[in-house]
Amino acid sequence: MKLDNFAIGIDIGGTNTVFGLVNSQGDIIARGHIPTLGFATAQEFLKALSQNMQAMMSNYPQAMIQGIGVGAPNGNVYTGEILNAANLPWKGVIPLATVLKEMLGMKVWVTNDANAAAIGEMIYGVAKGMKDFIMVTLGTGVGSGFVSNGQLIYGHDGFAGELGHIIAIREGRDCGCGRKGCLETYTSATGIVRTAKERLERYSKGSSSLQLANKLTAESIFQAAEMGDALARDIFQFTGKILGQTLADVVAITSPEAIIFFGGLAHAGKWILEPTQHHMEANLLSLYKNKVKFLLSALPDADVAILGASALVWQASNH
Amino acid sequence: MKLDNFAIGIDIGGTNTVFGLVNSQGDIIARGHIPTLGFATAQEFLKALSQNMQAMMSNYPQAMIQGIGVGAPNGNVYTGEILNAANLPWKGVIPLATVLKEMLGMKVWVTNDANAAAIGEMIYGVAKGMKDFIMVTLGTGVGSGFVSNGQLIYGHDGFAGELGHIIAIREGRDCGCGRKGCLETYTSATGIVRTAKERLERYSKGSSSLQLANKLTAESIFQAAEMGDALARDIFQFTGKILGQTLADVVAITSPEAIIFFGGLAHAGKWILEPTQHHMEANLLSLYKNKVKFLLSALPDADVAILGASALVWQASNH
Repeated sequence: MKLDNFAIGIDIGGTNTVFGLVNSQGDIIARGHIPTLGFATAQEFLKALSQNMQAMMSNYPQAMIQGIGVGAPNGNVYTGEILNAANLPWKGVIPLATVLKEMLGMKVWVTNDANAAAIGEMIYGVAKGMKDFIMVTLGTGVGSGFVSNGQLIYGHDGFAGELGHIIAIREGRDCGCGRKGCLETYTSATGIVRTAKERLERYSKGSSSLQLANKLTAESIFQAAEMGDALARDIFQFTGKILGQTLADVVAITSPEAIIFFGGLAHAGKWILEPTQHHMEANLLSLYKNKVKFLLSALPDADVAILGASALVWQASNH
Repeated sequence: MKLDNFAIGIDIGGTNTVFGLVNSQGDIIARGHIPTLGFATAQEFLKALSQNMQAMMSNYPQAMIQGIGVGAPNGNVYTGEILNAANLPWKGVIPLATVLKEMLGMKVWVTNDANAAAIGEMIYGVAKGMKDFIMVTLGTGVGSGFVSNGQLIYGHDGFAGELGHIIAIREGRDCGCGRKGCLETYTSATGIVRTAKERLERYSKGSSSLQLANKLTAESIFQAAEMGDALARDIFQFTGKILGQTLADVVAITSPEAIIFFGGLAHAGKWILEPTQHHMEANLLSLYKNKVKFLLSALPDADVAILGASALVWQASNH
C-alpha cells in the first residue's frame, strides 16, 4: 500500500456532527458522527468529538495526517473560532481551533460550511482548476463561497460571502436576521415553501396537487412540477426569477467562470436552474452575457460536508 | 542622486490622455498629455502617444523604468486589449499592450481606470497595507475596484467590479448600458443631476436656489447644500440612501475593511458620505455593522489617474 497524505474533515451541524479521514484524491476512507445536541458545554462536546476521532484514527496508525479542517456555522478562518452561531446550542465565542489543537495535537483550520463546500469543489469537484467561481448552497438558508484569483474571499473579518443576505426584494419577507427581503427568504428550500404557502392561500382557479400535499417541502413542490402541476412550475419560475436577478448583480462584482449549485433546492435540477439562468442572463450587463457556466456540485451529498472541510487542509498547505 | 526604480502610468480618457514617469514613492517626476480625439485610427493615436512618451523619457536617460501601466475604458488585464469602449472614438478590439510594447520595448499592463485607481490607493494611498477594500469612483459614471486577499478581483474574463451596473432600483432609470435602474443612473455626478432635474420639475412649494442655477452640476448642488438649500440637501439624502443600500449588499459579498471614495461627487464630502454611511449601516447584516471604514482617496485629483496606472507595474512585480 502506497503511503498517502490524509486530512481530517469535520462538519458541525445544528443536529449532527460528522467527520472523516480523507486521502488526497478525495476518498473518505473512514468516517464517524456524534450528535451536536445533548452536551451542556461546547468543551464537553469537543471532548466527545475528539475521543470519537481518536478512535477512528487509531485504526490508521500509519496515516500521515496533515491537519484538520472544520466547517461550522459562523466559523472564522482567521480566529479559528465560532462566533454566536444561531444554529448551535452554545452562545458566544467557541475557540474551536485552539481546543481541538490541544486535544488532538494537529493544525486546525475553521470556516463556515458554504466556504468549505467551495474549497471542496475546487480541490475535488467540478471547480478543479477554476480560479473564479461562486458556490451557492440552496439549503435551509442560502449560503455561498466566492473564489477569486484561486482564493476564497474571506474579507477582512473572515465573514465575507453572505449571498443569502443580499436584499432581493426591498421591504420584502421577514428574514431570521431581523431584516426584510433577504435572498434566502425566497430561494432556499424553506423560502420556496413560503412561496408555495402564499400562493396556495390565494389560489382559487383550477386545482393543484400541492393543495393535497401532506407536507409542503422543496421536494414535494419538485415532485408536483415533475407531474405537470402548473402552480408548482410557476413557483419555480418565481423563485428562479428572484435568484437570477440577484445573481446578475453578483456576477458584476466577481465575474465568475461558473456558478456551482448545491443543496436541497438544487436537487430540483432544471426546475430551479433553468428559470434562474434565464433571468440571470436577461438581467446581466451585456459584457457578461453567455459567459457564466451553471453547474451542479459533483460531490456526493453525504460526503460534501466532510470533503469540503478536509479540503481546507490542502488549500492551506498550497499557500 | 540615488538611483530609483520608475514606472510609467498612462490614463486614456474619452477626451485627453495623460501620462507620467513615477518613482516608487509615488512622486510624478515628469508628465505629459495628448488629446485622445482627432486620430483616425487607434494605431495613429498610439504612435503619437509613444513619440510624446519617448520625448519625456529622453530627459531621464538613467531612469530604470520597470514597465508601463495603462488605465483605459474596458481595459483588460489578461489580454492587454481595450474591448468595445463606448467612450473612445475607435470601435472593436485595440491590442494596446502589444502595440505599446512594440513601440516602446517595455512590459505593459492594462486595466480599467477604476481598477487602476484601486491599485494606486493600495500602493501609494489610504489603502496602503489593506488586503480587503472597495474603491468606488463617483464620476460621470460609478466605477469600482474590489480588492480581496491583497489582489484585485479581475474575474475570469478581466471585467469584474462593475458596481455602477448593479441594479439599485428594479425597473428604475434608463441606463446607457441598455438596462434599467443601474446604480450609476442615481449616484454618479450625472445621476445626482438627473435627480435634481426630476425634483425641480415636481417642486412647487417653497423655493430652491437650484431653480436659479445656470447649469445644474454635482458642484452646484453641493454649493446649494452648503448654503442651506433644503432641496439640495434632500437630493443628497436620496442619493446617499440608494448608494448606502447597494453598498450594504456588496459588503455582504467581500466584507471589506474600508470603502474608499473618489471622483466628482465624492468631493461633496459629508453631504454624500454621511447619508451613504447612515443608510449602509441601517441596511447591513448585523455581522458587518460598525466595521467598515469610509475613507476619501488621499491621492491628488490631478495625479490619481497616472498614479493608479503606474501602480499596475509595482503590483505586477509583487506577484
